[in-house]
Amino acid sequence: MLSGGVGAARLLRALRRHDADVELSAVVNVGDDLVMHGLTICPDLDTIMYTLAGAHNDELGWGLANETWRVMQRLGELGGENWFALGDLDLATHLYRSQRLAQGATKTDVSRELAARFGLDVALLPVSDDPIATEFDTALGPLSFQEYFVRHRHDVVVNAVRVRGAAAAVLSDPARDALERSSRIVIAPSNPLISIDPILRVPGVADILTRRRDDVVAVSPLVGGAAIKGPADRLMRELGHEVNAVGVARFYQGMVGTMIIDVVDADQADAVANTGCDVRVTTTVMSRDDHALALADAVRS
Amino acid sequence: MLSGGVGAARLLRALRRHDADVELSAVVNVGDDLVMHGLTICPDLDTIMYTLAGAHNDELGWGLANETWRVMQRLGELGGENWFALGDLDLATHLYRSQRLAQGATKTDVSRELAARFGLDVALLPVSDDPIATEFDTALGPLSFQEYFVRHRHDVVVNAVRVRGAAAAVLSDPARDALERSSRIVIAPSNPLISIDPILRVPGVADILTRRRDDVVAVSPLVGGAAIKGPADRLMRELGHEVNAVGVARFYQGMVGTMIIDVVDADQADAVANTGCDVRVTTTVMSRDDHALALADAVRS
Repeated sequence: MLSGGVGAARLLRALRRHDADVELSAVVNVGDDLVMHGLTICPDLDTIMYTLAGAHNDELGWGLANETWRVMQRLGELGGENWFALGDLDLATHLYRSQRLAQGATKTDVSRELAARFGLDVALLPVSDDPIATEFDTALGPLSFQEYFVRHRHDVVVNAVRVRGAAAAVLSDPARDALERSSRIVIAPSNPLISIDPILRVPGVADILTRRRDDVVAVSPLVGGAAIKGPADRLMRELGHEVNAVGVARFYQGMVGTMIIDVVDADQADAVANTGCDVRVTTTVMSRDDHALALADAVRS
Repeated sequence: MLSGGVGAARLLRALRRHDADVELSAVVNVGDDLVMHGLTICPDLDTIMYTLAGAHNDELGWGLANETWRVMQRLGELGGENWFALGDLDLATHLYRSQRLAQGATKTDVSRELAARFGLDVALLPVSDDPIATEFDTALGPLSFQEYFVRHRHDVVVNAVRVRGAAAAVLSDPARDALERSSRIVIAPSNPLISIDPILRVPGVADILTRRRDDVVAVSPLVGGAAIKGPADRLMRELGHEVNAVGVARFYQGMVGTMIIDVVDADQADAVANTGCDVRVTTTVMSRDDHALALADAVRS
């Protein structure tokens, strides 16, 4: 699965529940990774890891359950930057990763180690071990991913998205193997422009999808013209895309054999099919378990 | 005051209690600073800061009062390195410093900012903004400062001490000003070999002390031939120094106008004087408040 954060995590969890034995690999976006306070933080990798471990914070929608905020509170008292909230337990993940990277381990190594500690039965694969940084030209000037996403709560007009480093990044061997050898490639219902596109821009990924397009299934993250979570709808509008399943299908055109769209968008099925793919219609909103399982079933069938 | 950690912190506190108005500057060793988990940690600067703020952990002898260990505990569960214990509140200091350094601030800048936040009325001056690393050749092979000091609890034979980077380090302007302009220079009762020597090795410091030796007062950290805290006695023996106030006086010979030694070492006064300095004898063990004030008085008189 080409994976962003929450949407991918939920679909991976649903696929695992749907079939305890299926082999699952997540090829994960690293374009929103950041270095803050000296720590290397990988939000999408961690969201997937925490969710699949059942350790995620459902109330917040990010981070870990039973979290406390002692370090951040003190950091605020010291006048430090605390707009990117890092819980005490979550910090241990970033300390672990940062120390291992300083020792010469790759993000791929660290993800494997952490996934084992969290008891995951899904391979957690950063698309690349090279630095990739998604950046935004906005009405407020250039912003890093998390400045845009967290600091400004994605509530600012975006004129352009750049994925710095992607063209020079090397697709990791385990990610390449997963994409080459899996029976099916799923594009998660993540934000096409800022979660999936940074993966597609790593040389080799789009080629593999184009070559294997009959095995590629994409799930539209837009339902009724709106994103379940995050700024996908607004960004697609601002960057000139049609803000519905048809717009998503066009974005992935040539790389996708099957698009899965929500029942509320059933009237778009023909238009989606006209982009050159099969269409499946099902319930896709995974906050309901039965919808999540229906979606997992559609992805597998 | 040329300063290591605990001994210097206690003497600075005593000097402040002795005279609320005296201007105090600590020129602090950075040879035991380390980067761990991506965080820049300055143990001597922080020990002084926490102690002078009254926020130090008296029970542990290091770190902050009311400390908790949630991050470290989880880091241990993740299989991370946790032999260098970092409390939750303490971590906020390191996150703050690391973030500011990444933004281009110097250690001097960060120390000034943190000292203000902690309400200090003592100037907290890293001897240099350049990297200095005290390292040990030991029976277990080469060790970094904190590997030697914390990981192996300084319980290993030391064959040599190296202070990497010191010869190329630039004495910071505020530290130079403090050393040039203060009415008196105090060498704290810190470890001569691993707390004070890294300061003395920064080009300019020994010259200033030699030139101003009549204004330099050193306090012996050895009382009755033993260190109050830490491995000063053992290290002096292993590295061929006499393990008493005379050995300390010889180590600082030519840079010190007055040596202060403890009453229990009164019989060494003549031998200390023979190294070429005045001698004052007083109580120096600062775990007792009256002794600390007597020492402050001796330093000022």
